[in-house]
Amino acid sequence: MIRIGVELGARRYDVGIGAFEPDAAAAAIAAALPDATGLALLADGGLLSAAGPRVEALARALRARLPALGRRDLPAGEPCKTLAEIERSAGWMAGSGFDRGAAVLGIGGGAACDHAGFLAAIYLRGVRFALCPTTLLAMLDASVGGKTAVDLPGGKNLVGAFHQPRAVVADLGWLDTLPGRDRAAGFAEAVKCGLIADPDLLDRLERRDRLRDPAELAAVVAACVRVKAAVVAEDERESGRRAILNFGHTLGHALEAASGYGLRHGEAVSLGMVAALAFGESRGVTPPGLRRRIEAILGGLGLPVDYRARLDEATLARVGVDKKRRGGRLRFVLCPAAGRADLVDISPSDLRILL
Amino acid sequence: MIRIGVELGARRYDVGIGAFEPDAAAAAIAAALPDATGLALLADGGLLSAAGPRVEALARALRARLPALGRRDLPAGEPCKTLAEIERSAGWMAGSGFDRGAAVLGIGGGAACDHAGFLAAIYLRGVRFALCPTTLLAMLDASVGGKTAVDLPGGKNLVGAFHQPRAVVADLGWLDTLPGRDRAAGFAEAVKCGLIADPDLLDRLERRDRLRDPAELAAVVAACVRVKAAVVAEDERESGRRAILNFGHTLGHALEAASGYGLRHGEAVSLGMVAALAFGESRGVTPPGLRRRIEAILGGLGLPVDYRARLDEATLARVGVDKKRRGGRLRFVLCPAAGRADLVDISPSDLRILL
Repeated sequence: MIRIGVELGARRYDVGIGAFEPDAAAAAIAAALPDATGLALLADGGLLSAAGPRVEALARALRARLPALGRRDLPAGEPCKTLAEIERSAGWMAGSGFDRGAAVLGIGGGAACDHAGFLAAIYLRGVRFALCPTTLLAMLDASVGGKTAVDLPGGKNLVGAFHQPRAVVADLGWLDTLPGRDRAAGFAEAVKCGLIADPDLLDRLERRDRLRDPAELAAVVAACVRVKAAVVAEDERESGRRAILNFGHTLGHALEAASGYGLRHGEAVSLGMVAALAFGESRGVTPPGLRRRIEAILGGLGLPVDYRARLDEATLARVGVDKKRRGGRLRFVLCPAAGRADLVDISPSDLRILL
Repeated sequence: MIRIGVELGARRYDVGIGAFEPDAAAAAIAAALPDATGLALLADGGLLSAAGPRVEALARALRARLPALGRRDLPAGEPCKTLAEIERSAGWMAGSGFDRGAAVLGIGGGAACDHAGFLAAIYLRGVRFALCPTTLLAMLDASVGGKTAVDLPGGKNLVGAFHQPRAVVADLGWLDTLPGRDRAAGFAEAVKCGLIADPDLLDRLERRDRLRDPAELAAVVAACVRVKAAVVAEDERESGRRAILNFGHTLGHALEAASGYGLRHGEAVSLGMVAALAFGESRGVTPPGLRRRIEAILGGLGLPVDYRARLDEATLARVGVDKKRRGGRLRFVLCPAAGRADLVDISPSDLRILL
């Protein structure tokens, strides 16, 4: 098991990465929630067919270590990220008698982790929470850093909170239950971590045959969590440097929305990263060879790279409603070299050069 | 104008109390929101009939000092405190292009202040906000201290956030537009502040004829805000001492809910305080004379004191779902003498002595 600390002073916590027996996962969670008066377990409904017994085994192990465990199953995927669904979960918690000493545990993909974290942020004005991410994407991204949010009808992640978990248990065993397309999508965030902060990680991702080895996969996940933990420790509330984690996301979010969410988040980020590298080239910041190398890595991992075929005026118009906009300008992340990221302020119309 | 600082380090802010011209109020708000990229004004719909022109004058003055002012009118009173209404406000803000640099301004009673504060806490994971409380209750209580919340179908204030405003402008001019019953209800929190922390304030409230003098009223509001600011500065997130502000509220909330919210919050707190004094007597903590004195003050201010006629088994059963409960015990506030408060842990069933 690899343990990585997210160093946030009084809010520090550990991310555990590896293969966990149910009792080992339960022990790590219980240790991070001393004196909990109850545990409200929110499980991703998408897990129930392929990983139902695994969820049940974890719930049993938790029941042996924590008082008053209750369980609610969420709608699978993004549909759980609404205020209406948060209201249902909070009403269930209140009706079940969970008080301020209780904690929330989210088990699932990025959407379930976001739901659980935001629920914990606002239930009785804030209770503790822990996460068991079950997808590669959630292990690398949603479960680390304390950004929680749900969607509005007008856009994704528009309401939320910064609320740090007390523990994250990234059990790679869940990944065996993941469809191939979801597994591939998770690697997009890994490529991003390499691009903005860790050139060695790009080398690992280039040797993709080795990723089938559990130890190598654990090392890749750990490298990504290290990148994210370091950025978050420097700028917890995204007032500055943390924005580099949005590399590929400004255009990615617009492409994801334009697809009617037919694209996976990771697929959209893959396209958005290639587009951001092309944009960097057009400004003389990104060396041309880098984009070709990244296209090869992403393509090899099963991710789409043909942003040109998908980007149009209507998609670019969506960039204007992204929440990173501030006073009409857009904070954009450029990559001047493998392992480096720069923040620049651009006008949304500058992106039209990509059309 | 009296100015009172709420001393919370980097989150400190001022509460201004007095009579404000619209431009003076706008200036105080604008000064507390430097570099705001916009202002989302949320106005209590209950103001529109009696105080519509006053709201419009303030909006005009704000428009002259801040960019991109937008206005949304909320349903009057408690109905604005739902997640569905928060979703409408957040959707309106997103659709209007408010970004992370924008701020929220709540104008209205306690419900509108709670709505505005919670909206600001979660919109884009948190933007700045300021408040113009328009009721006595909101000036003394909801607008100071950063506790924001909305209701669930199963109970009041069950989801929320700690989020401090950047400025509070308590313009006593609004109170002229207030129905007599709402004005009276506001004094319940003033009596509470006197009971738990400021015996001189009780003397002032006893001389109720003088409260018609604006300067005396301003002094009473200021004394209450000073009590609240001192308690909040000591324990911002209610991990301990701040709970004394709940004096009279445990039973008050239960009575308010049992009345189907036919009781005003202040009326319910008035009843809850008398009951809490009686409970203190039964434990030998509260001297008997204190309850009689407080009953006279509350009655003189037009507030109900006959808790015995309203308290029954069903009402007491509601205490069990109050969020101050922790692990089956209840944190209860007792008053051993005018100006003092003690926190004790009791069992909800101990309260049956009041029946």
